[in-house]
Amino acid sequence: MNKRAIAQVPATLGPIFACLLSLASPALAQKPNIVLMLPDNLGYGDVGFLGTGGELRGMPTPRIDQLARESLRFTQFLTEPGCTPSRAALQTGRYPIRSGLSLVLVKGAANTLKANEITMAEMLKPLGYTTAYVGKWHLGFAQESQPQYQGYDEWRIGFLGSTDVTSYPREMSKYHAPDAIIQNAIHHIVEADAPNTPAREVRVYDIAYRRQIEKDIADYSVDYIKRHANGRDPFFLMVAWTRPHYPNVTHPDFKGKSRIGQYGDSVMELDYRTGQVLDAIRESGIEDNTIVLFLSDNGPQRTTIFREDLIAGSSGQFRGELFDPYEGGIRTVGMIKWPGKIKPRTTNAMISLLDIFPTLAGFVGGKVPHDRPFDGIDQSDFFLGKTDKAPRESLITFIRDRIAAVRWRQWRLYPRTVLASTDVLNTTGVQGIVAENSGYPAAYNIEWDPREEWNLLIENSWVLGPYMKVIQSYRKTLKDHPNPPAPNFTDF
Amino acid sequence: MNKRAIAQVPATLGPIFACLLSLASPALAQKPNIVLMLPDNLGYGDVGFLGTGGELRGMPTPRIDQLARESLRFTQFLTEPGCTPSRAALQTGRYPIRSGLSLVLVKGAANTLKANEITMAEMLKPLGYTTAYVGKWHLGFAQESQPQYQGYDEWRIGFLGSTDVTSYPREMSKYHAPDAIIQNAIHHIVEADAPNTPAREVRVYDIAYRRQIEKDIADYSVDYIKRHANGRDPFFLMVAWTRPHYPNVTHPDFKGKSRIGQYGDSVMELDYRTGQVLDAIRESGIEDNTIVLFLSDNGPQRTTIFREDLIAGSSGQFRGELFDPYEGGIRTVGMIKWPGKIKPRTTNAMISLLDIFPTLAGFVGGKVPHDRPFDGIDQSDFFLGKTDKAPRESLITFIRDRIAAVRWRQWRLYPRTVLASTDVLNTTGVQGIVAENSGYPAAYNIEWDPREEWNLLIENSWVLGPYMKVIQSYRKTLKDHPNPPAPNFTDF
Repeated sequence: MNKRAIAQVPATLGPIFACLLSLASPALAQKPNIVLMLPDNLGYGDVGFLGTGGELRGMPTPRIDQLARESLRFTQFLTEPGCTPSRAALQTGRYPIRSGLSLVLVKGAANTLKANEITMAEMLKPLGYTTAYVGKWHLGFAQESQPQYQGYDEWRIGFLGSTDVTSYPREMSKYHAPDAIIQNAIHHIVEADAPNTPAREVRVYDIAYRRQIEKDIADYSVDYIKRHANGRDPFFLMVAWTRPHYPNVTHPDFKGKSRIGQYGDSVMELDYRTGQVLDAIRESGIEDNTIVLFLSDNGPQRTTIFREDLIAGSSGQFRGELFDPYEGGIRTVGMIKWPGKIKPRTTNAMISLLDIFPTLAGFVGGKVPHDRPFDGIDQSDFFLGKTDKAPRESLITFIRDRIAAVRWRQWRLYPRTVLASTDVLNTTGVQGIVAENSGYPAAYNIEWDPREEWNLLIENSWVLGPYMKVIQSYRKTLKDHPNPPAPNFTDF
Repeated sequence: MNKRAIAQVPATLGPIFACLLSLASPALAQKPNIVLMLPDNLGYGDVGFLGTGGELRGMPTPRIDQLARESLRFTQFLTEPGCTPSRAALQTGRYPIRSGLSLVLVKGAANTLKANEITMAEMLKPLGYTTAYVGKWHLGFAQESQPQYQGYDEWRIGFLGSTDVTSYPREMSKYHAPDAIIQNAIHHIVEADAPNTPAREVRVYDIAYRRQIEKDIADYSVDYIKRHANGRDPFFLMVAWTRPHYPNVTHPDFKGKSRIGQYGDSVMELDYRTGQVLDAIRESGIEDNTIVLFLSDNGPQRTTIFREDLIAGSSGQFRGELFDPYEGGIRTVGMIKWPGKIKPRTTNAMISLLDIFPTLAGFVGGKVPHDRPFDGIDQSDFFLGKTDKAPRESLITFIRDRIAAVRWRQWRLYPRTVLASTDVLNTTGVQGIVAENSGYPAAYNIEWDPREEWNLLIENSWVLGPYMKVIQSYRKTLKDHPNPPAPNFTDF
């Protein structure tokens, strides 16, 4: 049953037929389009609708906030603590350690997304979806890893690494790096027009193009939506934004727009570009049949004094940032909109980036892999309001070859106490806090103590029970499906 | 022009007449009732509607959040950093140092609210308001200071000090204090039925009555509203809640209601009691002509390990708490509702507790004192939407005899760097931060850096210009009106 079939029904019967269709199984109805926007390093405390960012921080985010009002808003959207692991979790629905992607990849790293991994796009293809990926990928440098070999029909304005690279020549020059080294550090924007065809280099991804890229991603996305709005097949468009990842030079239109400098300008450009995509969906008349997801990939990058442009990402009331296993490293911005199907509301249920794949599968009748461990949970009934109880109770956070943290309900557990990368809090052992590098486990109650300042494990050692259960259940899956070697490019 | 006069108009002309009335000067129309609720130590991060509390912290606040949806919501509601100073600022519209109340008072302190101070209630009385004060006062122990000598027609379920006192006998027994000392520490609930009459002791304010007091305050307020709803005169009711101030034992109905223990239970009781007052206003049919304010008095009390019941107040994304001059000590919960007059919306304008007195005067045609320095700013035009620009640009925070901090726009300035009472962050001088007890000034950009982790003064010493202007403008007022001696009961 497709659009053409519907068009053959006499006009007067159209509404009745449409009504019958909506009662039929989802597999028979016209499948919804899916637009998934993935900002890069946007923090919980960067946007207005979650209470701690936007206007309060001198960088209003009206378009994101408006989308939030029309969406199911997640106040516990949990990701992985870095770009590569999060993107692996999103694409595969599996803990990134299972695909060897539990650390951010840099050029030269051996680990890469393997051909036999099944992505979201590969789940959607057999259902008749047209698919496209725009922007940053960052799931490995091998050809087999690239979007057009992983279920996406095309890849536009793409790049394989991180936006960091655009600052490399400038940074390297400061230290008088030889030309050969600088040349080797240059990365390119690449594109592929069709599945299973090698990508071609389009231009250098340098600081000049850094200013332009978000506009190009938005323009391409708008064009794609308009071209496919009246197509026979539903489409799945992944818009992998590059903002507000360092460096944050913006399009000239946004220079000085915010009250807090470059970082704020960049967030405001992201907000505007998001609005362009939303406008295209509305103007194409497909808003009612399009699922829109807006999901950040991980916690924000906070200020460092080593940058010329002071980075000002915020994790709001939470402790930690990008790369930290603390809550602020993984709790970030997330929402889903589906007019008439998903009631706009706020939920404080635990939603993981891992759950997006199986939830979309649940919506459209897709299949999740059963021949391997799969960690995502189908939240579709919960999102649609068919059940009040969200299914997720726990989440493991891996970094490199280790379990860095475990969430179980409102408890955060650290198998060994850790020292956050840039957060000096609590290292003094004052006020009854066990020194964080003591080697003992630690447990924080994230509701009672959102900044994880009070290790309550000694008084609450009972939490080790449910925690061990979560770990054991994960460990059991390793027997038949051991993890590949974890990334180790920093171990020499 | 009063309600009786309106009632004499034929029914069919009622709407026309009401319309004409609304065009007449506010002084001629029926004055609105005013219900001002003042929770005690409720933090920015404790309630749901500001994004960081409520359900996210295991203690839903549905009634406060619903009120917020119907109100002008303040995201920069700024108070003084303690109970007494805040209550002095609210009642007088003047910096508390001007009335000698720049420190929290304890029994035996010489400083007290003087008879010649003019309170909000004294501003409203000449306009025909019936006035009542319910709950904690904490503006001095002398008779002249008490509500019924300061413009309130009656004072119910009152007490002069802080709710701390209910824990004194228990705490003192731990240390084997002599009976005579314990007896001397006992405080009473007092009441006064009429203006200028001494208060009588009603009962001991002990830990048993601590469980009951919020219910009694709510019950009295409900009864007061119902009795005065159809009165000839408008009324001003101040409901000074006692929650979530330590100790937080609750009414038995709320024991175990939250997921985070006693503190959460107490916040949830506050939410429920607030709902009872709102229901009374609605059920009495006076909702449309009643201004409701819900304002916390200062930042929250956070966890200390010295308490049996772990206190869990949160200042959300901000640094600091009760008694700190940091943002978290003074930015807290605030909103105002006036159906049909004040459009429900969020504003990030700076609103000070000082501004409530002159703003209410602006609404009802009251007079603010002109014979003394007055620091509150009339925000009525801004609240009513007559102007887009809020009038406040700066705020000084005094502690004891000193300027502890100055806000100027988004900058927070500390004349001398300070060490927060319980916040160990940043004392290490790492990451370019000037050690906080160095004696040099410090400046933080509260939008760019909500947790005040980055002293930017060296790179932004230009902010000393506007800062000096704010200080000088205050200092000028001291020439003709020197401050009384500041509280010094801890200096021996």
